[in-house]
Amino acid sequence: MNSSTFDDAGVYRLDSHRALVQTVDFFTPIVDDPFAYGQIAAANALSDVFAMGGRPITALNLMGFPQNLVSPKTIARILRGGLEKTAEVGCAIIGGHSIRNPEPIYGLAVTGVVDLPNILTNANARVGDLLVLTKPLGTGIATTAIKRGVASRLLEKKVIALMSETNSVGAALAEKNLVRAATDITGFGLLGHLSNICRASKVSAEIFPERVPAIGDEIFDLIDAECIPGGTRDNLKAAARTTDLKSISPIQRTLLADAQTSGGLLLCVPERSLKRVFAILRKYRTPCAAVIGQITRRKAKLLCTTK
Amino acid sequence: MNSSTFDDAGVYRLDSHRALVQTVDFFTPIVDDPFAYGQIAAANALSDVFAMGGRPITALNLMGFPQNLVSPKTIARILRGGLEKTAEVGCAIIGGHSIRNPEPIYGLAVTGVVDLPNILTNANARVGDLLVLTKPLGTGIATTAIKRGVASRLLEKKVIALMSETNSVGAALAEKNLVRAATDITGFGLLGHLSNICRASKVSAEIFPERVPAIGDEIFDLIDAECIPGGTRDNLKAAARTTDLKSISPIQRTLLADAQTSGGLLLCVPERSLKRVFAILRKYRTPCAAVIGQITRRKAKLLCTTK
Repeated sequence: MNSSTFDDAGVYRLDSHRALVQTVDFFTPIVDDPFAYGQIAAANALSDVFAMGGRPITALNLMGFPQNLVSPKTIARILRGGLEKTAEVGCAIIGGHSIRNPEPIYGLAVTGVVDLPNILTNANARVGDLLVLTKPLGTGIATTAIKRGVASRLLEKKVIALMSETNSVGAALAEKNLVRAATDITGFGLLGHLSNICRASKVSAEIFPERVPAIGDEIFDLIDAECIPGGTRDNLKAAARTTDLKSISPIQRTLLADAQTSGGLLLCVPERSLKRVFAILRKYRTPCAAVIGQITRRKAKLLCTTK
Repeated sequence: MNSSTFDDAGVYRLDSHRALVQTVDFFTPIVDDPFAYGQIAAANALSDVFAMGGRPITALNLMGFPQNLVSPKTIARILRGGLEKTAEVGCAIIGGHSIRNPEPIYGLAVTGVVDLPNILTNANARVGDLLVLTKPLGTGIATTAIKRGVASRLLEKKVIALMSETNSVGAALAEKNLVRAATDITGFGLLGHLSNICRASKVSAEIFPERVPAIGDEIFDLIDAECIPGGTRDNLKAAARTTDLKSISPIQRTLLADAQTSGGLLLCVPERSLKRVFAILRKYRTPCAAVIGQITRRKAKLLCTTK
């Protein structure tokens, strides 16, 4: 993360017209199926490059497994999941490193290339830009419910499919200069990542809470039943200082703060580009993409919600 | 590692004249001092890029620490060690990722750039090339002795200094076209990595055992006292099939097989370039650099030793 603008990946100028965009992410299994775990870890790691408007070109596998406890077949399935996702977006896995580790870990270091004028940072949002979210929220709630054995089979299927989708649309939108600023929604939740855009761009934002899509209504029932990951609770606490969310229910607030894994992109789109942006989003399997707010002048609070 | 030529890092052609050289390496602490651990992890990760003739440009930190067991001050010292080593060779750390992990792990994903004609692979060694080793052997033996509390303070100091040295001379030599093939000596030991060069280049090699430098005479005493890491024993077993080492003692054989961390470069140098190579090596703090063998025609055994 760039420390001054809270951007998603590191940027290194390569020559007069291009930059490298680099990121690394790895984590312990969040689903039981090893192939899906590999796909999700790869989609998640690739996402930071897409959120900066870049195209991933290479990746290195990072692995840790307890000796003799994970079968070679399982490891091969994890790697196949990662390989399939990187291949899908034209990214070559050219190496990697594995160690013995008490807990299984898998992830990737990803390198992308971006033309300098196309770089999407957090720092360029303008007053009036519409906020477009490309995936529904709730992966933190849903994966916690799966771990606790309280998620429906349908929700499990939906959230795995959702987390396995890459955010490659980010590069397509950046190359057409349709987006002013962008980030992907991950550990800090919608509230945290939108706050980073506001800080870096010196603006505030208004969220339209009824327009924010959830993975399914089951998510609200799970929040009501206190199926909430620690990261999401931390995000809620952090948001209390900088947001005015009094007009919405604690359940809605929790959804907005939910820590995501392989979440969607949050795009700042000038109103005149909105139609073209949605035309491209439709091509990229983002049926839940929605306008969920708007950038405003800098106010006392970074974020507020419409009544 | 490139699977066909056993090379040290992945190579991705960037444009008509340049390629990216990428590698990732991380491990659990091998010395007690956190700053030294960070330096060694960085020198070790950077080494694969230098062994290919590249210049590291960017790196990403990879970290895992047990919650509440490693102080923020200790973590900061590890990172400072890594930062100092990467800065020393002009490489920028532009991001990273950390997780909670039962065991501490630290390392880096490193990206370098190399002009296409300068790429050093394992596959280009020629009959008659002299084998130059830039660091003495024995880091596996020495770090095992440190862990067991049987290393002298002097040996500990020497091996930490040695493992903290970068192999940046590799890039300098490649840019002057003085070296035909190169690798860095790491987990597979001198025998394993030299065997990889022989396989990739379709040649054999003769080792001059009395010319191979050890970190100190204490290394031989430690081998005699069975202070031998598991990786080194595995390397000895693997070497039995493809080498003829009958002329040397089991202690010397163990040194040649010792698994190194942040070991030196093994260079294949045409005889006419030897003087210029040593002139450059002298500038790069490699006082133990030595000619330790020669490339020969392909024989029944990949490696043999002089009587």
